[in-house]
Amino acid sequence: MNNQPACVTLRSRLLQLPSPIIIGVSGDSGSGKTTYSNGIRRLLGDDIVKTIELDGYHKEDRDQRLLSGRLPLDPDANYLDLLEEHLRLLKQGKSIDVPIYNHGTGKFDSPRSLAPSPIIIIEGLHALYPQLLPLLDFSIYVDPDHDVKWQWKYERDVKKRGHRAEALREEMLKREAAYKRWIDFQKTNANIVIKIFHSRLQEFSRHEFTGQVPGWCYKVELIVEPASIPLPTLPLPFDFAAMLAAHQPPFMMAAVPCTYWGRPVTIIHIDGVLSQQTIAELEAQIVAYTGIPVDEALGSSINPQEFEQVSATQFAQLLVTWRFLEQVNYRLFEAIQKEELKA
Amino acid sequence: MNNQPACVTLRSRLLQLPSPIIIGVSGDSGSGKTTYSNGIRRLLGDDIVKTIELDGYHKEDRDQRLLSGRLPLDPDANYLDLLEEHLRLLKQGKSIDVPIYNHGTGKFDSPRSLAPSPIIIIEGLHALYPQLLPLLDFSIYVDPDHDVKWQWKYERDVKKRGHRAEALREEMLKREAAYKRWIDFQKTNANIVIKIFHSRLQEFSRHEFTGQVPGWCYKVELIVEPASIPLPTLPLPFDFAAMLAAHQPPFMMAAVPCTYWGRPVTIIHIDGVLSQQTIAELEAQIVAYTGIPVDEALGSSINPQEFEQVSATQFAQLLVTWRFLEQVNYRLFEAIQKEELKA
Repeated sequence: MNNQPACVTLRSRLLQLPSPIIIGVSGDSGSGKTTYSNGIRRLLGDDIVKTIELDGYHKEDRDQRLLSGRLPLDPDANYLDLLEEHLRLLKQGKSIDVPIYNHGTGKFDSPRSLAPSPIIIIEGLHALYPQLLPLLDFSIYVDPDHDVKWQWKYERDVKKRGHRAEALREEMLKREAAYKRWIDFQKTNANIVIKIFHSRLQEFSRHEFTGQVPGWCYKVELIVEPASIPLPTLPLPFDFAAMLAAHQPPFMMAAVPCTYWGRPVTIIHIDGVLSQQTIAELEAQIVAYTGIPVDEALGSSINPQEFEQVSATQFAQLLVTWRFLEQVNYRLFEAIQKEELKA
Repeated sequence: MNNQPACVTLRSRLLQLPSPIIIGVSGDSGSGKTTYSNGIRRLLGDDIVKTIELDGYHKEDRDQRLLSGRLPLDPDANYLDLLEEHLRLLKQGKSIDVPIYNHGTGKFDSPRSLAPSPIIIIEGLHALYPQLLPLLDFSIYVDPDHDVKWQWKYERDVKKRGHRAEALREEMLKREAAYKRWIDFQKTNANIVIKIFHSRLQEFSRHEFTGQVPGWCYKVELIVEPASIPLPTLPLPFDFAAMLAAHQPPFMMAAVPCTYWGRPVTIIHIDGVLSQQTIAELEAQIVAYTGIPVDEALGSSINPQEFEQVSATQFAQLLVTWRFLEQVNYRLFEAIQKEELKA
């Protein structure tokens, strides 16, 4: 991989940007948005990347919602005008007071002051709403399949929290209709849509499938808009000799160009289990490019119990980060062209 | 890739083998057997690798077949006992007189003397017949899908040679039944089965597929028995940055373990179009391992008109060669263990 001088100074260059790069990450509650924003935070560092959780912009707290019966999925149940104003201020280099929703108490905490940092991630149900789009430099929509969402919800609420399955199903159906009405459409505008399915590797076998596909193994489909200026090569550390060896975990990858909601995209399919080493090599290549040490504290918590193997999710996390770096590169290129970089 | 000293001398080591490594390559006429045996010849060299075409062992020439109505697919229409004897003699280091069938005249030419070389490929309809299997060190079965076979046959016989499509269809049906009865079952014994389909990349798109999939682009499925001693790493030269760029050709790869006819195998799926550079890099890695310069005269003729892009077939050809090299390595290892190598 080309370790170009311009790239090594990525961190210092980012600090010279006249206004923040704002990324919107949207998707349903519990869809795994944090997995992908964490990938960016982990590889660019917590001092460069700040996050705004959009739950703070809900109009009602938990008690109020119980009375009103309104769902936070409804855009009118959120102060999106305030959010828009906040993003505008950050773009102008001004600090804002971010409202904070406390998931523990179900109440709002006191606002937290946020000064602009080179990269700001806004993460929430309405992050890619039309009025916000002009203020975003990059947008990600996380879109797990119904089956996967149901499984996650079931495991959390029924198995861990002891809720009744029937009550959960009713609540889910109500939420799903609201999700379809107010949230889902945002994917039509995203630079990257991340679709998540149960593994489909069995379809690639003949006779008896003997692959070990753990429960945490998903198929990820990245629907990616091509970058204006692609980065240098990022070799994928696949080893054919290992693929051929006995007892290897199953794996699939595809890259297919198509038109998605009228925009040309590439769809990257990833399914299966990878070795920790493959992921480590890929991450090392990205780190060599950014020149920024990894924030290990933000290590992916997808699969802490397995040390040897990781899932397609973690691989996809790195690829999403790489695509975002292409956008960062473009933004830096623009700023240099316009002589906007701070001294 | 590890360029181990033992590997660099592969050629000289092969010349020290006490008896030839015999590879059987079977499959229907026109199934593309030569594509895969050429991969081995091209990378190991014409002085190391000799080929026996099994058509010479037919009992009847073209005129006799017209009278008898027998198909050469019938094992009884072939001197398989003679072939078995020939393989035995070659294994003992003795020369044989190979009978030659002339496809131009439809007659038998005079036999050709063949001295044992380190690697001998037998290529034909019955190459993996049960009585031959104990004499084979490695076996490959080439298995194009019905649709693909029909397309190849149609293009050759109707488009190029001007045969009537209806007559061809009737002949094909008769041949297919005989193929199913006498040839197809040999795949149950092969170390590698190579299945060939029309490209299925469109299934990986959403909305409008915009991939350019040329007519010569096939999906190849390699059903591969794991090697007893795997070779060192063979990195696959895939570049994620290129995959993300606009107007990239579509591509898919998967590796899935399963049990095929009771034996543990890995199925490698490859579909789509690759850059000439990817293939060149992969080939260079194999050449670095063997230490034998490529025989350019045996360049693949799959896609001569396209210079920039190559198909999954050529990629599969290299992977098959690699898997064969694992077998060669094992055979050498065995010979060294038994102190059989010639001085």
